Amino acid sequence: MTKSVGRLVSVLYRRNQVYLDAALKEYNLTASELAFIISLYKKDGISQEELSTRLAIDKAATANALRSLENKGYVSRTRNPRDRRANIIIITEYARRMEKGVRKQLRNWTNFLTEDIEEESVQTMFEVLEKMAKKVESIELCKKLGGHDE
Amino acid sequence: MTKSVGRLVSVLYRRNQVYLDAALKEYNLTASELAFIISLYKKDGISQEELSTRLAIDKAATANALRSLENKGYVSRTRNPRDRRANIIIITEYARRMEKGVRKQLRNWTNFLTEDIEEESVQTMFEVLEKMAKKVESIELCKKLGGHDE
Repeated sequence: MTKSVGRLVSVLYRRNQVYLDAALKEYNLTASELAFIISLYKKDGISQEELSTRLAIDKAATANALRSLENKGYVSRTRNPRDRRANIIIITEYARRMEKGVRKQLRNWTNFLTEDIEEESVQTMFEVLEKMAKKVESIELCKKLGGHDE
Repeated sequence: MTKSVGRLVSVLYRRNQVYLDAALKEYNLTASELAFIISLYKKDGISQEELSTRLAIDKAATANALRSLENKGYVSRTRNPRDRRANIIIITEYARRMEKGVRKQLRNWTNFLTEDIEEESVQTMFEVLEKMAKKVESIELCKKLGGHDE
């Protein structure tokens, strides 16, 4: 079988979700909520729509996750004074207090996955994954599709 | 920010789904159905439960995807003669005819992601991803969790 980034990434992603759902139980977070929290730790004060685009998660799922995170005390949503239809998402003090623990669970998973593999190869994998992630984050997929679909 | 396999894999996975949903439209397949088809191309004649475990996709989602794939003519489900409660999944002739095209769409995505990156680094990334995928496929996550959760 030809090597496929898509297949390998999918296998790892699904196991990742199973692991994180279990590992984040003590933080009252699900694996799908984690993506939002990690992105907001990096930069909050952005709109719901911006978050949705950044994570490539559709608007309905984004709205559900943020509603849940608000109920759990991780984020607060305030009306954007410049655009009454848009919500601005702010991370709470509570979420900040949880950050270290949440990140530790993510790091444990990385350590577990990579513990038996040579350091240098792991570094190369990270560099390649980061290049690919940057590439997909910076393009509009629909435009690209045409050119790669011949 | 510390490098996280989970974060990078999640970013790539979500974009992968967006790409595949578009690229597989002509095959009347969704990105989430693709995992089942690719796994069945490799080995069919297995039970619904075995597929669910192998892909780390829960039973309800597995049942939905297989029902949809049956309606679209990609798989047929027959009762297991040795276990009347279990379904055996067989890939259809139609699915076999689509295989080349479906795999080509997956390959296009890999080519697009890796086209600007040195061949040797891409090979290393594949080797590391495969090691990690084998590791997660071969363990029972729940057991492992305890040891990595301290």
